Amino acid sequence: MQIWKDYQEKNKARFLDEMLDLLRIPSVSAKSEHKADMLKCAEAVKKSLLAAGCDKAEVMPTEGHPVVYGEKIIDPSKPTVLVYGHYDVQPAEPLELWHNDPFDPVIKDGKVFARGSADDKGQFFMHVKALETQVKTNTLTTNIKFLIEGEEEVGSPNLGKFVAAHKSLLKADVILISDSSMLSMENPSLDTGVRGLSYIQVEVTGANRDLHSGTYGGAVANPITILAKMIASCHDENNHITIPGFYDDVAVATKEERELLNKAPYDEKEYKDELGVKELWGEKGYTTYERTGIRPTLELNGIWGGYTGEGAKTVLPSKAYAKISARLVPNQSSDKMTELLLNYFKSIAPPSVTVKAELHHGGEPYMTPIDSKGYKAAAKAVETTFGKAPIPVRGGGSIPICSILEKELGIKIVFMGFGLDNDNLHSPNEKYNIENYYKGIETIPYFHKYFAEN
Amino acid sequence: MQIWKDYQEKNKARFLDEMLDLLRIPSVSAKSEHKADMLKCAEAVKKSLLAAGCDKAEVMPTEGHPVVYGEKIIDPSKPTVLVYGHYDVQPAEPLELWHNDPFDPVIKDGKVFARGSADDKGQFFMHVKALETQVKTNTLTTNIKFLIEGEEEVGSPNLGKFVAAHKSLLKADVILISDSSMLSMENPSLDTGVRGLSYIQVEVTGANRDLHSGTYGGAVANPITILAKMIASCHDENNHITIPGFYDDVAVATKEERELLNKAPYDEKEYKDELGVKELWGEKGYTTYERTGIRPTLELNGIWGGYTGEGAKTVLPSKAYAKISARLVPNQSSDKMTELLLNYFKSIAPPSVTVKAELHHGGEPYMTPIDSKGYKAAAKAVETTFGKAPIPVRGGGSIPICSILEKELGIKIVFMGFGLDNDNLHSPNEKYNIENYYKGIETIPYFHKYFAEN
Repeated sequence: MQIWKDYQEKNKARFLDEMLDLLRIPSVSAKSEHKADMLKCAEAVKKSLLAAGCDKAEVMPTEGHPVVYGEKIIDPSKPTVLVYGHYDVQPAEPLELWHNDPFDPVIKDGKVFARGSADDKGQFFMHVKALETQVKTNTLTTNIKFLIEGEEEVGSPNLGKFVAAHKSLLKADVILISDSSMLSMENPSLDTGVRGLSYIQVEVTGANRDLHSGTYGGAVANPITILAKMIASCHDENNHITIPGFYDDVAVATKEERELLNKAPYDEKEYKDELGVKELWGEKGYTTYERTGIRPTLELNGIWGGYTGEGAKTVLPSKAYAKISARLVPNQSSDKMTELLLNYFKSIAPPSVTVKAELHHGGEPYMTPIDSKGYKAAAKAVETTFGKAPIPVRGGGSIPICSILEKELGIKIVFMGFGLDNDNLHSPNEKYNIENYYKGIETIPYFHKYFAEN
Repeated sequence: MQIWKDYQEKNKARFLDEMLDLLRIPSVSAKSEHKADMLKCAEAVKKSLLAAGCDKAEVMPTEGHPVVYGEKIIDPSKPTVLVYGHYDVQPAEPLELWHNDPFDPVIKDGKVFARGSADDKGQFFMHVKALETQVKTNTLTTNIKFLIEGEEEVGSPNLGKFVAAHKSLLKADVILISDSSMLSMENPSLDTGVRGLSYIQVEVTGANRDLHSGTYGGAVANPITILAKMIASCHDENNHITIPGFYDDVAVATKEERELLNKAPYDEKEYKDELGVKELWGEKGYTTYERTGIRPTLELNGIWGGYTGEGAKTVLPSKAYAKISARLVPNQSSDKMTELLLNYFKSIAPPSVTVKAELHHGGEPYMTPIDSKGYKAAAKAVETTFGKAPIPVRGGGSIPICSILEKELGIKIVFMGFGLDNDNLHSPNEKYNIENYYKGIETIPYFHKYFAEN
């Protein structure tokens, strides 16, 4: 619609500036030192919703970081779209690998470099600007509600309760989420699901204190060595996970599903070159898209123990730690898998050490049908602005709240992400292409239009 | 000798205070930020040598941290004892596990808690105070030279060159070192050797940047997982090291040697209780004293990679690191073993990662005969002040410079350590019992007396 295009063209510089302002707030939910930043960010989101045309918006408390709710109700008889997003971001460490301050955005080669640019501030903010576009041009055809939370990156521990307590407030016909990526600008895609997550931490303790590795070395268990053995026991030579029961509940993808999945463009050389690796690694018998889409995984997210500073220290450490997470697929249950992982690491510990294993957080896998009214509206919107029908793909990441949102609100989710796989989510130098940002703002109003028409 | 006892009794408070002053200087050789502290400490040692009666003392440069040399020559025709020690200390990390500032000594229950209290400031300083005792009572019967270096904790990279360049300055009849421990005050012992060391660092790199563990998890090698597999491959189920060639040069201890070694008092329950472990860990077929004395070991001194902060971060890291060291026994060569370790870790890396392995430092194992004039003088000195002949034992630690000192100077080393295994060397809350400190000062003059008489 020309009226949208004109409005957006006229306001594009401001649209970008406002996104940058949001990125300047270090809203790291995992770190308690950022509590004040979280509140500041929630208030900024609320303000942006009101400025964009919401009738009301508020920062609503939870037991953790607050939720920002906003709504623009044009007519209760019209369909309502609930936009979910999150204003919290991953920790920015390791800071020394960033080319700029992660909370002082830098624009380079048409990309915004900052923590949260793609995940998810830059993406949920497209919806704010899409709302503004429709309100200011008097073209809004649906009601819109916003549910922007502050704990997605720590597993949304309080959102389930919040949603359950505010079912009528959040009542809608579809949930729309831009917190994922597409294959490329040339090959737009829509995620048909996200993987679940079980994230645990394992602590292995040997002696009650750090020891001299000469005096005691060879006679007392080294917790790093033991932890390494425990980790090594998790995958066999085919990179198949060996934890008993790990694959029990995995929904086996049909031949058709796998064929469809592998139709997405994929250039292995390009994929490897972009990552700088000589060979890929993964479960034997599956392609890359299958490995990241339909198969569960077990990844080491962090490990530490002993002396990690400059130079050499001949210490036999008392403790070693690992952060370990599994990505889950339908029909795996996060609670069950977490239990399985915790029990596994406790059960394989030799008697020379003690092992503590604890849940960090989890989330269920989620699948959305491609024949729903919402998915069809999204596909049509993408086709309108990209000139090409989107390919349905399985997302590798996790949005733990999906299954809870569907359960509590009784409606389906549509994933319409405009990020790219190389946006460095959760990594140093996270970026979001400005072109993608504007394309998202251009596409979203069509979703509302088609969803209302259908 | 009563005259020594009287002098020491009268000056004991000052003897302790002076040791504490030395402990207040954070002379951490491994960390470049402590360069000025290293110089300050060297100057303090020099001053203490002059104050104790040395004719001359100087801070002598090397390519790294300087060496402190001092001497008291009473008569060139008399025997000369070269005292070796080191004024540098291990890094104090992890700081949060200390009950006091590691460089602000605290006295509690008759123990001095501070980094370097036992290793080695408190121990080499006994020799300074023993010199003072003999000089001030006009009872010195040998010449004494001091070689106090500043790089022991980083593998003495520059001392070999220094010694080679100053052979005539360092000319002596025996080398005396207090940088080790004894079994207990009730069961005094003398080390008959120290283990060698090969200390390396391994860096495993997967992708060229940290990745989102959902987007890429399962399709790209995780360097932590790979590193864990590499570490796990080093020991079999009997805790025997599986690196090909690792044991090739190990001098097999005779039945008699093993019997002698196992005559030292050992209470497994007490040993375990003191360490807070339910079970010991070690190479099958060997006792604890054998595992720490006559057998080589491979220990993980540190490991790190990925996210190690508070909370959860779903990152698939680009890099993982480990600090790994082997303790060596006769006749293993440090250079050869280092080469073997570096090659091993490089050779087992799968093609999905790249591995960099580098030497931190090394040192040869060293054995001293128990029928030498020096060993006999030490044994007699210990028997005089402890009322009990010392048990000869093999030390588990390493003093990399030993084999070089013997080679360059053509004389034997005698180990006369007064520490205890539970002094927390290289660990938080390092301590040195004040009783042991005074006992050392009491015993050392007898060594000089007996060595001169013999």
